[in-house]
Amino acid sequence: MTPSPTERSYAEKLDADDDLGGFVGQFVIDDPDLIYLDGNSLGRLPRTTRERLARAVDEEWGRDLIRSWDHWIDLPTRVGDLIAEALVGADSGEVAVSDSTTVNLYKLAAAALDARPGRHVIITDDDNFPTDRYVVEGLAAARGSTVRMLGSDPVHGPSLDDLAAAIDEDTALVTLSHVAYRSGALADMAQITRLVHERGALVLWDLCHSVGSVPVELSASGADLAVGCTYKYVNGGPGSPAFLYVRRELQEDLRQPIWGWFGQRDMFAMGPAYDPEPDIRRFMAGTPPILGIYAVEEGARLLAEAGMHRVRAKGMALTSYLIDLADAWLAPLGFSVATPRDPARRGAHVSLRHEHAWPICQAYINKARVIPDFRSPDRLRLGPGPLTTRFVDVWEGLLRLRTLVESGEYESYATVHTRIT
Amino acid sequence: MTPSPTERSYAEKLDADDDLGGFVGQFVIDDPDLIYLDGNSLGRLPRTTRERLARAVDEEWGRDLIRSWDHWIDLPTRVGDLIAEALVGADSGEVAVSDSTTVNLYKLAAAALDARPGRHVIITDDDNFPTDRYVVEGLAAARGSTVRMLGSDPVHGPSLDDLAAAIDEDTALVTLSHVAYRSGALADMAQITRLVHERGALVLWDLCHSVGSVPVELSASGADLAVGCTYKYVNGGPGSPAFLYVRRELQEDLRQPIWGWFGQRDMFAMGPAYDPEPDIRRFMAGTPPILGIYAVEEGARLLAEAGMHRVRAKGMALTSYLIDLADAWLAPLGFSVATPRDPARRGAHVSLRHEHAWPICQAYINKARVIPDFRSPDRLRLGPGPLTTRFVDVWEGLLRLRTLVESGEYESYATVHTRIT
Repeated sequence: MTPSPTERSYAEKLDADDDLGGFVGQFVIDDPDLIYLDGNSLGRLPRTTRERLARAVDEEWGRDLIRSWDHWIDLPTRVGDLIAEALVGADSGEVAVSDSTTVNLYKLAAAALDARPGRHVIITDDDNFPTDRYVVEGLAAARGSTVRMLGSDPVHGPSLDDLAAAIDEDTALVTLSHVAYRSGALADMAQITRLVHERGALVLWDLCHSVGSVPVELSASGADLAVGCTYKYVNGGPGSPAFLYVRRELQEDLRQPIWGWFGQRDMFAMGPAYDPEPDIRRFMAGTPPILGIYAVEEGARLLAEAGMHRVRAKGMALTSYLIDLADAWLAPLGFSVATPRDPARRGAHVSLRHEHAWPICQAYINKARVIPDFRSPDRLRLGPGPLTTRFVDVWEGLLRLRTLVESGEYESYATVHTRIT
Repeated sequence: MTPSPTERSYAEKLDADDDLGGFVGQFVIDDPDLIYLDGNSLGRLPRTTRERLARAVDEEWGRDLIRSWDHWIDLPTRVGDLIAEALVGADSGEVAVSDSTTVNLYKLAAAALDARPGRHVIITDDDNFPTDRYVVEGLAAARGSTVRMLGSDPVHGPSLDDLAAAIDEDTALVTLSHVAYRSGALADMAQITRLVHERGALVLWDLCHSVGSVPVELSASGADLAVGCTYKYVNGGPGSPAFLYVRRELQEDLRQPIWGWFGQRDMFAMGPAYDPEPDIRRFMAGTPPILGIYAVEEGARLLAEAGMHRVRAKGMALTSYLIDLADAWLAPLGFSVATPRDPARRGAHVSLRHEHAWPICQAYINKARVIPDFRSPDRLRLGPGPLTTRFVDVWEGLLRLRTLVESGEYESYATVHTRIT
């Protein structure tokens, strides 16, 4: 007799059949009682990263010292190539690892505006991640441009119809998240890119919540520009460096505003005037964070080994199972699913709405020992990492949530303030 | 009988009397035959940094996961406070660690230009570090401003007279290096700041080559803005994050152009419009590199323990000894000192000019096992780190240089291309 999805043995069967199950053992999991459902915020530590960082510190910095710059100098583009080819569907020479997502967004958005002189509108949506909205707001303020802020369905994101109506001959740039940070809605990159190009504008994709969880097809969809972070599903560690993508044909025509020595042609000549490299390196600025890039390399390597199509399949299966359990156990307790139910229309995290989401979240962490995150104003966000989470973790995590809310014991946690990023 | 400075016993005596000598043992020195005179480019690895990074990786990332953001969130300003108080003569709340020097320069220079509307000139000097020149060139190009590039004496830097003549009512910003990256010339921060303020402009100091080697007196000299790197004399590791300083009274009036979520007031409310923090945090942008900041903290802590006035005294003594040996041994071989001879007018590195500096540098590294760096077009740059270098290292390093050049064996190294940053 087949067990019901609400029985633990059902989850155990899914794990037994999971061909990515072996990857869980490649990550540091010291506390098996703790259920971690926040891979969408800070991914777990890969075992090899510990060793790679220790080796880089001891041998490359401590022993070889400045001589290591002989190979460090190519690290931002070498790891960029790995991300390009294994994770985001781009070609080698189209991605570099550097700076933060915010700084990369700023550089590429500014470059795009310069490439569309006479057009004065930047389009984004009101549910886009704060930094994305603030960066374009700042650029618009500095240049006398306008941000056209699309209203966004809280579950499904901005609609194609609204986008089609908003993009016009005055639009310089459209910038959107590929997977929405709260709802998890997955945008149709190919179709939106086509819409944008029909109107002669450029598109800049934020891949923070998709890279490493959803196969991204930058080349196939004709995307112009993209940025992404590496501390979520790429498991690069807290504040690990971000990456940027510029389609090859655009590279020589675009120029970003932060003119630094790492963008300069023949940089050690230290010439008098800025003359940027003709390639992706012109989008770099200052000295790149070497140790951080090594950590990114380890995380990206594990994803490359797993293969993004298998990662995607497991991400869909984990979130589908999570939604099934939420329907069975949590809907009666006042929760509603605030993420698209069609797995093809969402990334790898699920938002659950509840009027007492804040105290529930605090009690969930501190009492039930399950880590989700909270997203203002009323959502619990659950992100099982496809490489790091088992189906029994989802089962156990949701069971503990049901038990907690049924007991009402979360109420005393309303004033607890664990910050969660 | 007192030994001559050219005798090893003279250097040994200096080491015996050195009250900072004990700090050398706090750094990883695995290869005692290798003489490292490039502390001005990449500082050595502190022993405690190895352990601090391993602990942060294993415990804070691997075990505590996202919960560590509870204390990580304050790390950029907490380590900023340490740098402020122990290294650069500023107050707590005036320094934050974030981004690269290039990005910080861009943010602060742009903020300064916005604060002086109607003034169209940025002043710097033609021997300033490339990134500094390129950043202001880029800002000027974007805004229709002009860079007034002062001619600079190759040994002593820009003269006060030239500066006084150049700064006028149209000057918005003067940006200079505190210690010049090639010559090591030390600018008179207090006097130049006064000149700049008399004309109503703002001053932005690049502390990359002074922080950790020269006591910086930002508050006492009335400086407005500063940036600095941490991978040289602060021993923060390759590409470790930079810092920025904004004088407290200016903070609320200045606004930098990269509007990111780490500058936002009550950032986790993720509000609709950018409303920056009133304090130093408004000069941050994206998620800060946590592991990198821990490494900065360890390096800064060692300097705080040593005390910047003792560090300065040893830096002057090391470079004076180096110059004495260069006069005795190297001047007859075609070298000239391209750094101010008055120790009060230089930082902690010395440039030696030689017409064959490139092949000499390559042979010095690969044959003589001494690491300096090369600076275009004809300079060997020697930077003994005050905490990490013994006087016998200077003696041995200069002796090997004399032996190498006397032998003529460097000639075959003209085509070797070890990159040095």
